[in-house]
Amino acid sequence: MKIRIAQFGLGPIGLECVRLAAEKPWAELVGGVDIDPQKIGRPLGDVAGIALPETARVYGTFDELLRVARPDVVLHTAVSRFAQVVPQLEPIVRAGVSVVSSCEELLFPQLKFAAGAKAFDELCRKYNARVLGTGVNPGFVMDTLAICLTGVCRGVEKIEITRVVNASHRRLPLQKKIGSGLKPDEFRALFREGKMGHVGLIESLALVAHSLGWQIGPITETCEPVIATHDIQTKFLTVPKGLTCGIHHRAEASADAKPISLDLQMYLDAENPRDAVTITADPPVESVIHGGVHGDRATVAVLVNAVPRLLQAAPGLRLMTDLPVLRAS
Amino acid sequence: MKIRIAQFGLGPIGLECVRLAAEKPWAELVGGVDIDPQKIGRPLGDVAGIALPETARVYGTFDELLRVARPDVVLHTAVSRFAQVVPQLEPIVRAGVSVVSSCEELLFPQLKFAAGAKAFDELCRKYNARVLGTGVNPGFVMDTLAICLTGVCRGVEKIEITRVVNASHRRLPLQKKIGSGLKPDEFRALFREGKMGHVGLIESLALVAHSLGWQIGPITETCEPVIATHDIQTKFLTVPKGLTCGIHHRAEASADAKPISLDLQMYLDAENPRDAVTITADPPVESVIHGGVHGDRATVAVLVNAVPRLLQAAPGLRLMTDLPVLRAS
Repeated sequence: MKIRIAQFGLGPIGLECVRLAAEKPWAELVGGVDIDPQKIGRPLGDVAGIALPETARVYGTFDELLRVARPDVVLHTAVSRFAQVVPQLEPIVRAGVSVVSSCEELLFPQLKFAAGAKAFDELCRKYNARVLGTGVNPGFVMDTLAICLTGVCRGVEKIEITRVVNASHRRLPLQKKIGSGLKPDEFRALFREGKMGHVGLIESLALVAHSLGWQIGPITETCEPVIATHDIQTKFLTVPKGLTCGIHHRAEASADAKPISLDLQMYLDAENPRDAVTITADPPVESVIHGGVHGDRATVAVLVNAVPRLLQAAPGLRLMTDLPVLRAS
Repeated sequence: MKIRIAQFGLGPIGLECVRLAAEKPWAELVGGVDIDPQKIGRPLGDVAGIALPETARVYGTFDELLRVARPDVVLHTAVSRFAQVVPQLEPIVRAGVSVVSSCEELLFPQLKFAAGAKAFDELCRKYNARVLGTGVNPGFVMDTLAICLTGVCRGVEKIEITRVVNASHRRLPLQKKIGSGLKPDEFRALFREGKMGHVGLIESLALVAHSLGWQIGPITETCEPVIATHDIQTKFLTVPKGLTCGIHHRAEASADAKPISLDLQMYLDAENPRDAVTITADPPVESVIHGGVHGDRATVAVLVNAVPRLLQAAPGLRLMTDLPVLRAS
């Protein structure tokens, strides 16, 4: 029995999910959902540029798709915020269909939306649906991986997680998202307005703390522009020396004097890109993924790899730490 | 409600388990089991050198312990082989008590004992017991960690896992176990007789393959002595130049031309100790734990940390990949 999958959101990441899922012998793509009138009504295979049965088509809403197809799981890659994701997922959950979503705040919505997360969890249980927010960051390199590494520790005194991404080889939307070309003051004003910075960083921190049973105090966040020290030229844009070429976003908190820090640097021409986890503990753990894990490529992998694991879990709003360890599936 | 724990096997690792479990607010130690007449009948706290309720005592068999105490979980650190562990665990399982064991072959007994593992799994299900074989190696650094890292990969082409341990700072039993001081020919003869080498290496390989759904061909194993290039002096022993100062144990297999290799080097004065996982995939992953994870300290941590996770799993003979990701608990 194959797992029937529908793709909600047919942007670049969503289309990559379709292409990857189509390669899996355990998966069957049954359709897509998108708001783009250019895509609605077309065969999903046409839109994704791959061979798929003609019956798998693109619809404007999930309810329309549901009239003709019955997915087991929806891969959802459309929004970043919990307030946005809930109305999109409610019809899916009410149909008893499970969801793996890239929505960053859905990684650990309990942090900012305790009541909303509880209500949504109850809805999922009532309709026998499983919902998971995941990806590579948030979802793996700055949270689940660090949690997994604490498994060899007797007691943990301190956790430091660092991700450095060289954005020069990434897509234009990412190069723009990190503020490339902005004046430093423009960057800072955008962060104050909540329009700059990495959505999900504090959710990662909170998930780590939650999984260790740590009751943390307030989370301190800083987000500063990285300033170009020389003129930078990428395939897509140019940043003159002195302007913003990326972000340096930090989040910190502590529980009983045991600190957790997450330090995310994404900038053009970044040196020594890596994913590092340093755990002060007995025994200590100093882990580095040299070169770092590629964001877009890995996010699609995590979303698709999560599908069989999520279906093994109990119904409800699930966390990455509730599932059996993810693996290439 | 605390988790009631009994410790089976009161050697150095077992006693460390007792001491660590005693620190956990969620755990209550209810007794121990050992064959040593010097320990039987004494309070477990006395034997472990810590303060425990007088009611927690050491018994010669599990059945004797069961007459006075009712553990939820037994931590078992007594043997390495499946054929040895089954008779020790049967009375525990028949009492409906779950087990976390350091028995190396129990990590993945399906490799060498398919029928025995199936029968034991059925026994566990019948009596509502959960049984897990784990530790740091096998159990984490050369299997579960690598599996976890594949979670960010779309497809995996090759997996190379390397562990280098500097045995100079380890306990005397480990320094002896790796053949320190043997003539190289003596070492090789012992390996041929099955008395040398790391028990669990091929189980780690098989667990990785199993978790990825790979049907591997035969496993090739080599185990060579590491030869001292200079006179080596540890706290416990001396190895003259030219004699064995450790082991280099490799296991390899492949599935559809996709190779997996595990390379374990444990020797005196080893340079660059580390736990490395290199995954050839899209995206690639090159992970290193610098210094490596300390064997004894971490094994005890993994065993105790596995307890709350195992109790979340369904009854049966469980694998590390069946459980929610371990964490410091």
